[in-house]
Order: sequence, then structure tokens, then C-alpha cells
Amino acid sequence: MSGLLAGLDERITGVRELCEDLHRHPELSFQEVRTAGVLAQRLRAAGYEVTTGVGGTGVVGVLRNGPGPGVLLRADMDALPIQEVEAVPYRSTATGVAADGTEQPVMHACGHDTHMAALIGAAEQLAAHRDSWSGTLLAVCQPAEEGGGGAQAMIDDGFLERFPAFDVALGQHIASAPSRHLYVRPGVFMAAADSLRVTVHGRGGHGAQPQATVDPIVIASSTVLRLQTVVAREISPDDVAVVTVAAVHAGGKENVIPTTAELTLNVRTFDPDVRERVLDCIRRIVRHEAAAAGAPREPDIEPINGFPLLVNDSEAALRIADAFTEQFGAEFVHEPPAKAGSEDFGVFGAAAEVPSVFWNFGGFDPALYPDPAKPNSAVAAGKAPGNHSPEFVPTGLEPTLLRASAALVTAAALWLR
Amino acid sequence: MSGLLAGLDERITGVRELCEDLHRHPELSFQEVRTAGVLAQRLRAAGYEVTTGVGGTGVVGVLRNGPGPGVLLRADMDALPIQEVEAVPYRSTATGVAADGTEQPVMHACGHDTHMAALIGAAEQLAAHRDSWSGTLLAVCQPAEEGGGGAQAMIDDGFLERFPAFDVALGQHIASAPSRHLYVRPGVFMAAADSLRVTVHGRGGHGAQPQATVDPIVIASSTVLRLQTVVAREISPDDVAVVTVAAVHAGGKENVIPTTAELTLNVRTFDPDVRERVLDCIRRIVRHEAAAAGAPREPDIEPINGFPLLVNDSEAALRIADAFTEQFGAEFVHEPPAKAGSEDFGVFGAAAEVPSVFWNFGGFDPALYPDPAKPNSAVAAGKAPGNHSPEFVPTGLEPTLLRASAALVTAAALWLR
Amino acid sequence: MSGLLAGLDERITGVRELCEDLHRHPELSFQEVRTAGVLAQRLRAAGYEVTTGVGGTGVVGVLRNGPGPGVLLRADMDALPIQEVEAVPYRSTATGVAADGTEQPVMHACGHDTHMAALIGAAEQLAAHRDSWSGTLLAVCQPAEEGGGGAQAMIDDGFLERFPAFDVALGQHIASAPSRHLYVRPGVFMAAADSLRVTVHGRGGHGAQPQATVDPIVIASSTVLRLQTVVAREISPDDVAVVTVAAVHAGGKENVIPTTAELTLNVRTFDPDVRERVLDCIRRIVRHEAAAAGAPREPDIEPINGFPLLVNDSEAALRIADAFTEQFGAEFVHEPPAKAGSEDFGVFGAAAEVPSVFWNFGGFDPALYPDPAKPNSAVAAGKAPGNHSPEFVPTGLEPTLLRASAALVTAAALWLR
Amino acid sequence: MSGLLAGLDERITGVRELCEDLHRHPELSFQEVRTAGVLAQRLRAAGYEVTTGVGGTGVVGVLRNGPGPGVLLRADMDALPIQEVEAVPYRSTATGVAADGTEQPVMHACGHDTHMAALIGAAEQLAAHRDSWSGTLLAVCQPAEEGGGGAQAMIDDGFLERFPAFDVALGQHIASAPSRHLYVRPGVFMAAADSLRVTVHGRGGHGAQPQATVDPIVIASSTVLRLQTVVAREISPDDVAVVTVAAVHAGGKENVIPTTAELTLNVRTFDPDVRERVLDCIRRIVRHEAAAAGAPREPDIEPINGFPLLVNDSEAALRIADAFTEQFGAEFVHEPPAKAGSEDFGVFGAAAEVPSVFWNFGGFDPALYPDPAKPNSAVAAGKAPGNHSPEFVPTGLEPTLLRASAALVTAAALWLR
Repeated sequence: MSGLLAGLDERITGVRELCEDLHRHPELSFQEVRTAGVLAQRLRAAGYEVTTGVGGTGVVGVLRNGPGPGVLLRADMDALPIQEVEAVPYRSTATGVAADGTEQPVMHACGHDTHMAALIGAAEQLAAHRDSWSGTLLAVCQPAEEGGGGAQAMIDDGFLERFPAFDVALGQHIASAPSRHLYVRPGVFMAAADSLRVTVHGRGGHGAQPQATVDPIVIASSTVLRLQTVVAREISPDDVAVVTVAAVHAGGKENVIPTTAELTLNVRTFDPDVRERVLDCIRRIVRHEAAAAGAPREPDIEPINGFPLLVNDSEAALRIADAFTEQFGAEFVHEPPAKAGSEDFGVFGAAAEVPSVFWNFGGFDPALYPDPAKPNSAVAAGKAPGNHSPEFVPTGLEPTLLRASAALVTAAALWLR
Repeated sequence: MSGLLAGLDERITGVRELCEDLHRHPELSFQEVRTAGVLAQRLRAAGYEVTTGVGGTGVVGVLRNGPGPGVLLRADMDALPIQEVEAVPYRSTATGVAADGTEQPVMHACGHDTHMAALIGAAEQLAAHRDSWSGTLLAVCQPAEEGGGGAQAMIDDGFLERFPAFDVALGQHIASAPSRHLYVRPGVFMAAADSLRVTVHGRGGHGAQPQATVDPIVIASSTVLRLQTVVAREISPDDVAVVTVAAVHAGGKENVIPTTAELTLNVRTFDPDVRERVLDCIRRIVRHEAAAAGAPREPDIEPINGFPLLVNDSEAALRIADAFTEQFGAEFVHEPPAKAGSEDFGVFGAAAEVPSVFWNFGGFDPALYPDPAKPNSAVAAGKAPGNHSPEFVPTGLEPTLLRASAALVTAAALWLR
Repeated sequence: MSGLLAGLDERITGVRELCEDLHRHPELSFQEVRTAGVLAQRLRAAGYEVTTGVGGTGVVGVLRNGPGPGVLLRADMDALPIQEVEAVPYRSTATGVAADGTEQPVMHACGHDTHMAALIGAAEQLAAHRDSWSGTLLAVCQPAEEGGGGAQAMIDDGFLERFPAFDVALGQHIASAPSRHLYVRPGVFMAAADSLRVTVHGRGGHGAQPQATVDPIVIASSTVLRLQTVVAREISPDDVAVVTVAAVHAGGKENVIPTTAELTLNVRTFDPDVRERVLDCIRRIVRHEAAAAGAPREPDIEPINGFPLLVNDSEAALRIADAFTEQFGAEFVHEPPAKAGSEDFGVFGAAAEVPSVFWNFGGFDPALYPDPAKPNSAVAAGKAPGNHSPEFVPTGLEPTLLRASAALVTAAALWLR
Repeated sequence: MSGLLAGLDERITGVRELCEDLHRHPELSFQEVRTAGVLAQRLRAAGYEVTTGVGGTGVVGVLRNGPGPGVLLRADMDALPIQEVEAVPYRSTATGVAADGTEQPVMHACGHDTHMAALIGAAEQLAAHRDSWSGTLLAVCQPAEEGGGGAQAMIDDGFLERFPAFDVALGQHIASAPSRHLYVRPGVFMAAADSLRVTVHGRGGHGAQPQATVDPIVIASSTVLRLQTVVAREISPDDVAVVTVAAVHAGGKENVIPTTAELTLNVRTFDPDVRERVLDCIRRIVRHEAAAAGAPREPDIEPINGFPLLVNDSEAALRIADAFTEQFGAEFVHEPPAKAGSEDFGVFGAAAEVPSVFWNFGGFDPALYPDPAKPNSAVAAGKAPGNHSPEFVPTGLEPTLLRASAALVTAAALWLR
């Protein structure tokens, strides 16, 4: 490694230890207090001016290094209410208070620990080489990406006014793909997401007197099955949509038919017309499946949250892909299809009206991926865990983090040199 | 009113006030502390030797009144985790800690308040007329009928050894039927109940990557729908069974497909062969609905609790029906079909190897029941609430309680005179 | 055997041969031409005045034998469009033109062949002993019981005007029960039946473009599953109903999504209120399951046919049960529950305003029925075929037919002596 | 219009009349006798050597016009068993004998009439201008594209040996898109298709005795619903699949539960791995949905037919797209996504090991398509009929056929000049 990347490989053991420490101590959205403290301390030690508590628990490190463009590097900090399997020594046994007020096991099941560690690695590396570039670097540790409120919360907390201007926003996400491989594409990168809460209203009663009730669990079950037809029957094969019922809750006592059932829906789309059609279909199905049972009133449908489409600036994305190819070799750089996952990273670039680019880096054993151009193929084959699975623990942490830190440095250098 | 019933009508206002007080302060199973205290105090004031804490929170009042048979009168004390609608001034706003550890609204949605009030009315009346009969009276206030553990808990706590012997056990339950009407039948009175917990095992993951998961919510929903076929297709029209899915719980975070889903099933049957067939069908459906989705392992099915068949002693039941007819008039006494509800009242008679008889009394506006011989007909017609509904608040409390207390006195007198 | 039954056992070989001949040559409803010819010839040979072509293909034999009451004995003649399994030498290989105009295999899968043979046996026996009784005998061979139009067609064809008056109508049906056993009950004997045709309207299109269609097969499938909830959830466990989807037809070419789907429903109930509720539920479910898919118009629901409740005259039924007990022994006479099957036999008694009684006789190997009081128990256990099954071939024909003929003679004698 | 296209616009009235005539007289697969006769006569009149009866009812016209490359132009001839709506004066009222032996209404609901007319237009035009080009032209009228056997039947009938060699195969299909617009893409153009017949085995019986049966209609319905999850849950959002249940047939008599149910499935995929996964899922679901009902044996799954992927030669396709752009203007030439429909056109090129190119032409009112780059958008919006719909009648026949004939001439000229 040479130039801006010189010495990054020596730095990476410490980055890996940071990653394991973060993995062992995951925190839920907007509760990233310990996490923020650890990151703020690392950034300060590297010479950054650090502000904490931005948009709740967010951390912003600024390195002013002479005239020149501003570059924002962003990592997300939050974990998920999932019980980690026993697989690694740094397994999480942490718990946290979930949105419903209950105590839940918590896990970095979406790899945000690797995002943070790679960001710190890049931030430290760029600080160490500050004589080789000029401009301003913003290292942004965002709370609450899961659920999508964190980026907007930072913007709403005066981000644009309180911190230096930036000319590009860069971010990355680990993928179920081989370590050292990078995935970047111009244009649409990730889906729009809409989450909805559906409350089905039946009529409660005694478990032995169904005829005196309108059973909301039957309605909910029929609704879940019928919702499968939205993607299977109502969307063109040329279009993409995902409709997931992520939660269903109804009932308590075993001899009581409950009065209501609650469904949580999650919808992914890449096109506004398709999105509108999918939401229309959902509303129609939910309403008539309840009416088919003689429900006393229509279900309530309320939005929980939403993510916009994540769209990469095409010119900037192609520049970055070229730089990756030159730096790491063409065999490690791929143009993936747009992904059905969602992200609020785009909020920074949109708010500042500057280009933003987001990419994926692989984090798993390359042997699992006969064709590295196909991220997630090992998941489809049942050989590797997908994101949000209790088994989503990246393997080969050091090569993964080395490549991810180097990718951030390489991309940032396109503006900072 | 004459004889043993003389003056009962004057006593009933106080009984009604007791009922309203109990209604306002419902308590969940095995948590009936205030309730037990109120009842113990009333029984003591009427001259009973009172023991509390029997089988947890149970109360036993004994009135030894010379030689002669022993008669056990039983009421159940517990309420349900249901939020009462706003309908009466003595509406419950109480809460309690449910089996899952959460705080829940609580309501006497199964009318146990009327059972207790009627028992106190009868106990006080028989105490006041103790010169007209001879024998021993046991007034038993049982905890935890819902879920079925309370009667057995009292027996297990040495009931038969600690209290006087009895020759008959009598109990009653309010029904969705007109006030002042009574329903008694020889033989099978209520169903056997089996409650099961089914845990479906899928494979969790990201809400946008369904292909990397086995969605347990789809399995659970398909299972619920398919379970409808047990009663609809697999049981003879000559037989009776009820299969209720009383609860379904799965998932949390809106962008995470969960790993498991949990169903709570409640099964009612009147015949051991039918029971076995229904349970077999459930096991078959649960297993194959999971396998249809490629579930990584079979669902777990565990019993939660069960109630035996409630069978009235035929001779004793017919004697009581005759006495009711003589006392109240044939138009107020009916022989209903066996009911799909369940009860643990039978545990007392079975443990002591003596006859037991259980009956229903109506508690609602007679105008709703064009044919009083058909309890629940107004429920079926959507004009009256069924048991365990948040609207199950008896109307016409005074005539209801007067008749229910009088029924207990009348039945007891068959043995005590 | 003595009295009126003397010699019946010698006659039974010929009756069995008749039964096998009829079995080998089944004919569909209103097409019973050969059958009617065979029966007419037998009745004429026995001395009856015979009229054919009554109500289509019906046959009426009259034996005027002096003053006294009139007794109507009825058998039904039609078979079903079912392919018989290979089990007996007299297996049917006949075909007929079904209601949809297609050629279908035909089978006596409901045992009407045994009804006819037993009727002939009784008619011949009573004719042979005409010096032992006085009155008028009507032997009625009715067309088209399956589907229910045959009895009414005979009445509409002037039956009451053209033939002698009768004081009682008697009929019987083979059951999946042990040979030589009889089943009779006062009051409701068989269910009301309603058959409906539901036409679901979708929007057709290319199999690869589901988004341009409204798939009627998905609607139909969801409707079938949801209809299971009518019996499972919407009817009291105290009530009885059966909702069967007996046919579903949609589509042709494998790459064309069809425009419509057609369902045939069959409903059994024992109570007019339950019947109305079930039909309401069906209408509601059918409508909303189509609307859930965005169907361009509501499904059409048209009645196909219907059977009234079959109700036995209580006094007459009890007299017959007593006579059976005296003649055959109490161990061979049972009071079954009301059956969900349907019959148009009641049309004769109702039209003439005279009592009618219908009973069942067993026709299968007694070893299959550990408790002969439970007809159909071997079916439930999977050991014997049910009615309308391609395996429904009675075993032990001679004892079966001997008992069935004797039952008709014994019952008729209560009026004719 | 100039060059090879000069005078084509004057020819088009006759082409349109041919199209209307073919539309009025549609014929089912391998029954295209009249159609073949009409086409053969037109080709002969234009100077082609014509062979009929190739691969059943296929027609091949050959025009040898000096040295040079061979070009195969192909149209498909068969129609579908669909009842046409009343919309145009040349509406079809024809019938034909479908695969199941029944007489069915027949309609050109997939626009093969326009394919034939456009082929004749091009063939006549090229014949009229034979002094402007050199080479050999093959005008191929293929039977039985629907169901996929026709192209292979022609090859199997010695096509390659009996007719001149060709260097490229060209074909086109009408789309639900604006008239005068053309859609061509390199690489995968249309999906692989697999059609399957699933026979579900239950146990038949009486409609009133469901407990004695295993209801195959319930199994079939549950299977149809569960099959929706294949596309909705088991395929990556990045992949494309369509699973259509195109037919379901079970039952006849309204009081008989049938023994079997038959489903016809149609599957579309673009990738061999996805295809294998979808077929695996189908097998798994079909098997377990039957087992969930206790079916006496596993369903049978048999392939009916299949289409391979249709892949355009990339270089040839790009040459053709460029020629279309130059000839008709860039605003009329689009690169569509791969389509889920299927075609056996590719069989000719594959058999001869030469490039083949297939494209779409629009055939409907342009006002319905605000964005002409999106074929089928008006179908999705419910404003235009999709292929195989009873309303699929192209509008603006003359401009449509003019453009389609011109496209064939333009593409052929790339080789023939």
C-alpha cells in the first residue's frame, strides 16, 4: 500500500478490536450512548473537533485541513432487538428497551459495527496523512438508521448550520458478499421503504363461543396470505416490490378470543407508481379481508415510518468505481443491481443539495461465493446468513475492515486531493 | 317468598352492592387478594368459620349446623385481562400483571362477580335461617377458574383433610340468557378443554430479503386458516368441537422478519375419540404447514393446560331441576344442550367422590330472548355480548342475583332439610 | 320367521340378484329407463297395477287388497356420476350424460339399488301374503333423489289425484353401519340442503402478465378457504351445519389466466335460523373475497336446488321402533342422531298431509363396527367407505336385503293389519 | 417512403383486410388449415415457392433471388380458446375443439393475425422490389406457438434439410404498446416457461359427510394460495419469476365431494437457478399442502410443455435497433426490459446455429401511453387489454401493420443488401 493508504494495514488490528468491542456492546436506535462515547474519544484522539448529542446521540468529528472541498463520511451506529447466536467470542449478550417498552436482547445484526470501525479506520488514516491532502473532513456517526429517523434528526438538529459545508456525502454498508469485494452503481441504489401498522378490529369473546365473536386472528391470517398476492399477482414481473408482514400480535389468555389484531407491514419499491399501486392493493386487501368476516369496523392503517429511494449521483458513482478499480483491481469491483433494502443515508446529500454515493463492501468468507459478482447468492443457497439474521456475524474481520477503510479513503481522496 | 327463601328479597340490595363492588375491583387468577378479603369478611360476619389462603387465595367458610349432610357451594373469584367498555357506573378501571409479565386492564368479563355475590346471598340467607335446617354448609370461594388451576390447587392444599366432608357439590355460572331463568341438565354439561402452545420455527432475516428467510408469519397465518378445516371438514356433523387460535405473536422491528411465531390454541370437545382426532389433525396441519414453507425444523407443540369434561350427576341434577320447577315455575327452568365452555368445578366432586351438579342462570334483559329456552340466541343474533367480551356486563342485577341466590338455597335445601 | 315374514328368507336370493343387476346397470337422475322397466315388470308379475312415466321415469305399483288404510312404500332409483372401483363382480361400467353434457361413468354409490331391491322384496312378500292383511299398498319407485327433484316431480305429475290415498309414507336408506341393524328416530331425521352456484368474475389475460388481470382462481381459492370459517367460527357449537364446496372449475389453456371461476356449494342445516345465518355468511365471504382482489364485478350466486328438512312423525316413528325391537331384538334397533344428509322422501307425506317415517338400515360387515349404535364410525376410522364414495359397495348383500325387506313389511303391517 | 419501403403504404389496405379476415377466422394450434391455405395462396401469388403441411399445418414460402445471405422471416398462426368480446365488425365467432375435447370459442387474443399480415406485407414488398436486393428469403408461417410445439414440429419435419439455409432468423410480436413504436433489446428477450399438471388425490364421499373424506378442493385451494408465496417470499427481489395457476378443475355433482382435483401451473423464469428453485418450491408446497389434509397419497406433478429462454443475438439486435432508429426515428425505438412471456421462435435460430432476433411492435392507440417507452403501462393502469384477454383487439390496424411490415423489411435488408 502506498500514498494515502500507506500504513493502513498496520492500523487495522486496532480497528478490528474496536469493531469487536462495538459488536459486544450493541445499543438500540437513539440509545447509542456508550457507542457514541467510544467513537467520540477515538475521533478526538485522532485530532478531530468532536460534537456529541447531535440529533440525539449522533457524533460529528470535523478535521479542517486547509482550503478545498468538504467530504462527509458517514457510519450508522444502532443495533437491532435480536438475540445473537453463539458463534464468536465477542458475541453480544446485551439487552435494551425496545419500542414496545419490553427488555430485549440486542445485536449488531446489520453490521453497523463494521461501518463504524471502518469509518474510524479511514478517519484516523486521513488524519495521519493530513499533509497529503487539503480540505475539510466530516466524520459523521449517525444514530437510528434502523427505522430511518436518525439522519433526519441530525439535519433537524441544525447539522447544516453547525458544521462545515461539504461537497459530497459518502457512505457504505456491509453486504453478504466476499470480503475485499466492493459493489457500487450509478443511479438508484436502494429501495423506498414504507412501514405501516394495521389494526384489525374484530369482536372479542369466549374461546368456546366463536359464533358470538368476529375472530381478528382469522382476519389477520387471511390478510397475511392474501397480501402475498400483491407481489405475486398485481405487480408486473418487470417491476420490483417486496411486501413483508414483519410482525403480528393478537390475543393473550388462551380461552379468550381477542378484539383486535395488529400487523406490521414493510414495503419496498423502486418506482413511485409501483409504490402507489402496492399501497393501494394493501389497503384494498386489508379492508375486504376484514369485511369478509363481518368485522364491526374497518381496520386502521397508519404509517410508522418511511425511507426515500437512495439514489447515487451517477457521475460521482462512476468516478468512485473507476478509482476502486484502479486501486483494488477490476476483479474486486462490481456493479450490483439496485437493492430492496433501504437507507436514510441519502438525507445528508439531499439536505445539502450535493451529490452522495453509497456502496457495499463484502464481509464474508470468499469460498462461499463462487461468483463474487452476485452478492447474497450464498444467502439464497442457504450457506450464509442474511442481514438481520441472528447469525449475521461477518467473518474475516481484518481483511474486510482493511478494504472498507481503504475504500472510504480512496473515495474521499477523489475530492480531497 | 316463604320458608328458607323468606326475606331473601330484602337482602338482595346488599348483595347487588357487593356485586358492583367486586365488579369494580376485578383481580386476575391467583391474585384475588382484595376479593378474598371482602368475601372472608362477609362470611365471618354471617357466622362462618373462615379460612383464607387455601390453594393460594381461596376462601372457605364453614357453617356447622348440627347433624346431617354436608353441602358444598362454590363460586369462582378471578377476572380476565380485558379492557371493559364504558357501560355502567361501576365499570372496572383496574389493571393487573398478566401471565406474560405485562400490565393489563382487568375485567369481570365472565361474570364471576355475580357468582360470588349470589354465593354470599345464599350463605347469608342459610345462616339467617339456620334453625330451619340441619347439616354442614361449606361456602367455597375458588381462585383461578380461568385457566383451570384453582380447584385443583385447593384440593392439593389439603381441602378434603382440612374441612368437613360434603355429600354434594353445587355450583352455577351466569349465562347470556334472560334474568330469572335457570338451565340444568343431567350428564355432560361442559366440554373438555385443551390449550396448546405452538412455536413455529422459521429463519429470520431482513424484511427486504425474504428469499434468505423462512417467514414464520406466513407459516403461522396459513396454519390458522388451515386449522379452520378441522371443525369444518374433519369432524362429523354429529360431533362437536371448537378449535380457537386465541393468540398469535411474532416479530417486532418493522424491517426484520422474525425467526419464530407463537400460536396459542384452545380446543373444546365432548367425546374422547373426537378429542383425539382433533388433536391429531392439529398436529398434522401444524407440521405440514411449516414443512410447506421449508421450515428448518418442526414446530414445537406443548400443552398449556386442560379442563376435564364437566359431568352432572344425573339423579341429583334431575332432583334439582324438579325443585327449581316447583319453586320458580316450569317456564323458568330449561334443559340446555351441553356447552362448549369448560369449568374446573367438577374437581371438588371428583376428589371427594360425591355427586356434583352445575347449572346456569340468566343475567340479561329478557326482552332480548324471544325464546328463553335458547341461551346465547341473542349473542348469535348480535344483540347481546357473549362471555369474555369487553361488553359482558349483566343487566338487571337485582332480579338476576335474587334468582341465583334462591337457586343455591333451593338446591342446598334438598340435602340440608 | 313367521307370520307376514314367513318365507321371506327363501325369496331373498332373487332379491339379491335383482340388486346386483341394478347395481351393474346404474342410471343418472331422470334417466332411469331400464331401471324403471325392470321394476315395473317385477311389480306387475307380483300382481300390482303398474303405472310408469310418473314424474318423468317414476313407477307406481298399486295393490288394492280390501278395505283399510293405505300405506306408501318408497324407494329411489337414480345413481351418481362416479367411477366405481373394482371390488365386486357386478361392478358398474356404465356411463351416462351428466348435467354438464359430458359422458361420465355412473355408479350406485349411494345404495339406491339396495333400496329398490328391498322394496321389491317387501312388495312381493306382502302380495304373497295378501290374505293376512287388508288395505291398499303403494310401491313407489321415485326418480332423481340426488338433486332432489324427483319426489316433487311425481307430485306435480298428479300423484295424489291419480293414485289411491295413503295414511302413512314409509322409506328407508342404507347406511354405513352393520348389516341387520336398523336406525330410527322421532322428529328431525335429515338436514335441509341448499346448493348454490357461485360465479366469480375476474379479468382474464396472459399467464405471464398477472398484473394486467384479476386472477379468478386466486379469488376462488381464497373463497374456499374462507368458507371453512362459516362452520368453524360463525355457527354455535350447539348448532349443526355443513358447508361443502363440491366443485370448482376455471381455466383451460396453460398460459391463459381465465376470466371466471365457478364454484358449486352444498349447505346442510337443521334449523331455519342457522340456515339463514350460514347463507348470509356465504354471501358476505363470496362478495368480499372477490372485492379483495379488485374484481370488476360482484360474483353471481344462484340457487341450484334444495331439500327441505326431513322430519319423522314422532308417534309413528316410535311405534315403528317398538315393532322393530319386538321383531328383531333390541340389540338391532338404535336411535341415531339427526343426519346431515338430505332426502326428498318427506315430499310425499307433506303433500298428502299424512305422517311419514324414514329410517336407515346397515349394509356392511358387522366386524367393522365395534359399537353398532354408531353408524359411520367405521367411516370416520377410515375402515369403511362413506356414501358417494367410489368404494361404497355394500357387503353381505343377502342379510342386508333380508333385514331391509323385513323392516318394510314389519312397519307396513302396523297399518295394514 | 423510399428505397425498399417505397409503395408499402399503398399496399397496406390489402394487408389490413387480410388481417381482419384472419381475425374473423381464428384456428387453434395445429388446426390452422384455412389460415395456412390463405397464407399459402398469398405467398404463391407473390412469386414464392410454397410448401404446406410442414410440421403439421406450417407453410414455408421461399424466394430465391440470386446469390447472398438467407433471411428467415417467421410469423405464428394459431389462436386461443377464448370468447372474443363484441368490439369490432370483424369479431370472431368461430369455435374449435380444444385439447380437452370440448368445443370452445376461438379468438386471435394474442395478435398472431397481425404477425401473419405483417409477414405477408413484408414478403410481398420484398418480392415487388426483388431487383433491389440479392439473396434468399424464407417466409415461415408456423403453427402452434401457444403451447410451444410448432417450431420444433417444423424442425422435426426436416425443415433444415428441405429448405434453403439462412443466416439470420427474424420475428416479431405485437405488444400492448402504442402503434408505430418498436421494442428491441440484445440478450435475453423472453422468459423460459414451464407448464405443469398437478393432480391432487383426496378421498371422495358425500357432501354431508366431510369427515369421511379428504376434500381435494380444500387442498387445491390452499395450494393455490400457498403458491403465491413462491414469488412473494422465496425469490430474490433482484430475480424475476411468475407462477400462475391457469386452471383448476374438480368435482361435478353438488352433493359429492370429489376424489381428485387438477391444477394447471405455468411458470416463467429468466435464469436457470431461479427456475430450479421455483420448481423446487412448487414441489414442496404441493406435497405438504396435500399432506396437511391427510391425503392418501402424494399429488402427481407432470410437465405439460415448456419453452426455452428466448435470447437475441446481441450484435444482430443492436444492428437492427440502429437501422430502426435511422429509418423510423429514435422516438419510435425503445429497449424494453426482458419480458415474462415466452416464445418458441428461438428454435429456428438455435437449430440452424445462426443468430436470431425478435422484437415487439406496438398495436394500440398512442393516447393510452403517456410514456411510449413503457409497453404494458396502459394495461397496468387498466386502460388497455393485455395479451390473452378477450378484449385484446389491436386498434389503428393500418399504421400498426405498416410499421410492422416496414420493420421486417428494414431488418431483412441489413442482410439482403
